Amino acid sequence: MINRIPREEFKQRQIEVRQKVNERGLDALLVHSNEADFANVRYLSDYWPIFESAGVLVPAEGDPILLIGPESETFARDHSKIPDMRKILYYREAAEPDYPDIEIDTFEEVFKSANQGRGIKRLGVAGWTAMPVSVYEQVRAALPDGEVFKSDDVMHEMRMIKSENEIALMREGFRISELAFQEVLDGIKPGMTELQVVGIAEEALYRHGAEYEAHPLYVLSGVNSTHAIGRPGYRVIEKGELVQLDIGARVGGYSPSVGAPICLGKMGAQMKDLVSFGLEAHLKTIEWMRAGVRASEVVVKFEDYVRSRGYGRYMLYGPCHGLGMIEVERPWMETTSDYLLQENMTFQVDTFFYRPEYGLRWEIGVRITESGVEEFSTRFRHIMEIE
Amino acid sequence: MINRIPREEFKQRQIEVRQKVNERGLDALLVHSNEADFANVRYLSDYWPIFESAGVLVPAEGDPILLIGPESETFARDHSKIPDMRKILYYREAAEPDYPDIEIDTFEEVFKSANQGRGIKRLGVAGWTAMPVSVYEQVRAALPDGEVFKSDDVMHEMRMIKSENEIALMREGFRISELAFQEVLDGIKPGMTELQVVGIAEEALYRHGAEYEAHPLYVLSGVNSTHAIGRPGYRVIEKGELVQLDIGARVGGYSPSVGAPICLGKMGAQMKDLVSFGLEAHLKTIEWMRAGVRASEVVVKFEDYVRSRGYGRYMLYGPCHGLGMIEVERPWMETTSDYLLQENMTFQVDTFFYRPEYGLRWEIGVRITESGVEEFSTRFRHIMEIE
Repeated sequence: MINRIPREEFKQRQIEVRQKVNERGLDALLVHSNEADFANVRYLSDYWPIFESAGVLVPAEGDPILLIGPESETFARDHSKIPDMRKILYYREAAEPDYPDIEIDTFEEVFKSANQGRGIKRLGVAGWTAMPVSVYEQVRAALPDGEVFKSDDVMHEMRMIKSENEIALMREGFRISELAFQEVLDGIKPGMTELQVVGIAEEALYRHGAEYEAHPLYVLSGVNSTHAIGRPGYRVIEKGELVQLDIGARVGGYSPSVGAPICLGKMGAQMKDLVSFGLEAHLKTIEWMRAGVRASEVVVKFEDYVRSRGYGRYMLYGPCHGLGMIEVERPWMETTSDYLLQENMTFQVDTFFYRPEYGLRWEIGVRITESGVEEFSTRFRHIMEIE
Repeated sequence: MINRIPREEFKQRQIEVRQKVNERGLDALLVHSNEADFANVRYLSDYWPIFESAGVLVPAEGDPILLIGPESETFARDHSKIPDMRKILYYREAAEPDYPDIEIDTFEEVFKSANQGRGIKRLGVAGWTAMPVSVYEQVRAALPDGEVFKSDDVMHEMRMIKSENEIALMREGFRISELAFQEVLDGIKPGMTELQVVGIAEEALYRHGAEYEAHPLYVLSGVNSTHAIGRPGYRVIEKGELVQLDIGARVGGYSPSVGAPICLGKMGAQMKDLVSFGLEAHLKTIEWMRAGVRASEVVVKFEDYVRSRGYGRYMLYGPCHGLGMIEVERPWMETTSDYLLQENMTFQVDTFFYRPEYGLRWEIGVRITESGVEEFSTRFRHIMEIE
């Protein structure tokens, strides 16, 4: 069982990104990440900031540079697979301290020294949805005659098809997620709050080998389960209620999750019907996926199927999203998704239905193969009524 | 014991921000938050996004508007203390889905309808370090003849002096943090990984009433404890090593934390000396704080004291930072901090020293009073050698 990407694979990624920088006629790519949206920087360096944010500059020539905040030096030195590190004030914490006693670099100096001293005129930025205005302003000011481009596609291309090691980390994450899911089934009782159940899951995740939760865990009971995305709270779980569980272990920077609805006691007929139909639609979706299929076709089939069976009004969105370092990442699967599924793309099959009183999600991860998919989790694929 | 800010206090906050918008000659303030940096939006609405981001528009006239992502409608409706909610595409997840089937609003429509239909020309933005370029671009495009200002000071002023309810939530957070800290002391054993110990702490935090971890917890052992900020990992903890613990419970959106170094077994003389000096400097810092004192004076006294005792080379920064919704928030305390401490400001007294082999932090929260401080946690204020 592996719990990290090997050093050589980081080196390979850095080389490939540099090639793409050159192919696009850029002088460099600046990748941005923060504590929550950590993927791009970790993908290239294995460094995952906390409190502060971080960047990686990949010049067209020469080695990449890790850009960190003023407080992260010893932390980053022990984790980064990029030896050249610079401290930049604007990767500081959101409280914006001055750090009068810490020596720092500037974007201007870093950009000037790049490409064997030729500098940067055409800069791509990856992380357009993560880079804050405070950093963007400084980047622009450091390139008065330069141009800045949204270049997220470089990292999307890199991250879309998964390597053997990435897939191994996801398998390990699913193994741990299933173990924690089972411990929740064993431990959950009427009268507990949603948050107490989260505690059971967290302890199990860490004990079995997670490095973090894959996402803030869902234990959403009763009417809270209608939240397509939501947060657990102090609501006390009662007998006969639907409880939506989404339990995910992050391992080596990869964030799979197992989701299923359970009921403490017997489900009512109406609840059982929607839960059962949800599982049916979930399994159907998996049948429609394989390399070469157009993504939008899976969505159209899913929506047609749901409507033809009379469940259209219970549907919010459908039926899959990309899985990788972030539990929800590109590529998404919508009616507008005009790409072909390819081998070693990985998706969460995410089947959500809701009524005014409750909602439910069946969710597992799959890897696209030539003939269909590899399912990463099949253990909790039945009606679960916990006595 | 309370676990949330009452509805009326949100109303009061909204009115005060509107007054500040008018005082500054703005037509509206747009506040931005994301999953990790959630404070400003939650301060005004109690809504705390997950996966997606969120905003609050506070116009100079009329009621505030909560801006959410396409998937968060039922979730936000059940949590937000602002009834007027609009879905904006650009608050979507970082994977940038299209959502062809979900009806959404635009910034243009929202801005046009504000101020009884007079619209917006002068817009302040709070959350300059959180708002991503992807949102900022759309905001600018929706105000072709307008001006946009960095207006973080509005929210800093609001959040700097804490109300009775805010202080009560922090006391509750410290109570839970101490309980979890004690359970870690009872459960930690040589041979465990840092991450397994995190699991013990998480379970206890949630069982005793936390809504989330106040920050990713620190269990940093041996050389990892040199990381001023860091993340726990798979390192196996051994007898005689220093283990740095920082355990924090978030309650009602407030994020206190208790930090102290422990040793599994007897500390060596050198370790004991630095740990003891750290505690001494920590307690001295607390003595120097009270309403009316200039913040920079505390820092100068701290640095002089540490240097005069011969420990200057083990110091990275110091000695306090603001505490509130975020475990590190404004106001920071540095030699450049030219403000006076005021009653009901709250700080973490954060005393960090490190050598090449280990580092340690004594950290608790305090509230400034007329005569000194209220200390939120005094339970773990001694040399802890765990047998």
